Amino acid sequence: MDTLKERIYKDGIIIGDNILKVDSFINHQIDTKLVDDLGKYFATKFKGVNKVLTIETSGIAFAIGVANHFDFCPLVFAKKSGSATLDTSNVYQTSVASFTKKVVNNVYVDKRFISKGDKILIIDDFLAEGNALLGLIDICKQAEAEVVGCGIIIEKGFQAGRKKVESLGIRVESAAIVDHFENGKVILK
Amino acid sequence: MDTLKERIYKDGIIIGDNILKVDSFINHQIDTKLVDDLGKYFATKFKGVNKVLTIETSGIAFAIGVANHFDFCPLVFAKKSGSATLDTSNVYQTSVASFTKKVVNNVYVDKRFISKGDKILIIDDFLAEGNALLGLIDICKQAEAEVVGCGIIIEKGFQAGRKKVESLGIRVESAAIVDHFENGKVILK
Repeated sequence: MDTLKERIYKDGIIIGDNILKVDSFINHQIDTKLVDDLGKYFATKFKGVNKVLTIETSGIAFAIGVANHFDFCPLVFAKKSGSATLDTSNVYQTSVASFTKKVVNNVYVDKRFISKGDKILIIDDFLAEGNALLGLIDICKQAEAEVVGCGIIIEKGFQAGRKKVESLGIRVESAAIVDHFENGKVILK
Repeated sequence: MDTLKERIYKDGIIIGDNILKVDSFINHQIDTKLVDDLGKYFATKFKGVNKVLTIETSGIAFAIGVANHFDFCPLVFAKKSGSATLDTSNVYQTSVASFTKKVVNNVYVDKRFISKGDKILIIDDFLAEGNALLGLIDICKQAEAEVVGCGIIIEKGFQAGRKKVESLGIRVESAAIVDHFENGKVILK
């Protein structure tokens, strides 16, 4: 998706060897026009979606943009830890390791919000090792919901995430794919 | 805002004495049409906004809806704890006590994303004691940015939040205000 790729080249910052910092337009300050454009983009890539699923936190903005372009379908976001209003006796639960935060989170979705027969599009901002997607797919499997596919804003093409998800027979579409890093710069596919 | 009020009466659930659970349309599953309608609503209430500010997590979806209706202006969300990509040497920082989670979080906004001269609309899903708003207002003050006002999805009218914010000379608009709870039911103003 050209707009996104140009933006990554212009405003992406590389930290260390393999962390791409996109906090000026993706995950701290958010370019809401880009969110809307990405929503339109994913709506051309997938059909028959009746619900969007993501995981807190930084997937939520983009998942809203996508759901808006599937006729304002509901968005469900998986929660990373128990809150005062989450009844954990009635949830689908899985665990997800975070690549950047180096922690494992228990992740929940209330059983009322994903059902057998739902056609789910999973949206996330980053795909690296695929842990978040595999967790969300596991939740859909527990609910006997169909995963139509996964839409990713930025994929790290040199990590194993896509391979793991595709090996389950699930389609992955990424708006931008990082091929590699070179001399402190990001090179996209 | 009538659509929201009807929805709270229909789908809101009361837990304990004073927690209104709206997880089927606000903060776990999200009604994205309602998000868009609320965005339109707040765009009629405030003028001259060039940036929307919220705090993770459940404010983000509604803040996107609002920013969309201010000509897709940027959205900044304050982060609750340090992440691998947040450089805490260059942030505005404040602390926010959570009413429902009973914890105090350090909250950060990177200094690159709020500046002197910005006209900020603060959006949050709930207003109770006002701690989140006061924290976000404090961050804007540190940045010498102007707070145009605060837009709230659901205000608990019997708690002190509005009074504290208005005492700073800042306008608060809420789409729905809980007057009180009565026999396990919510009564809106």
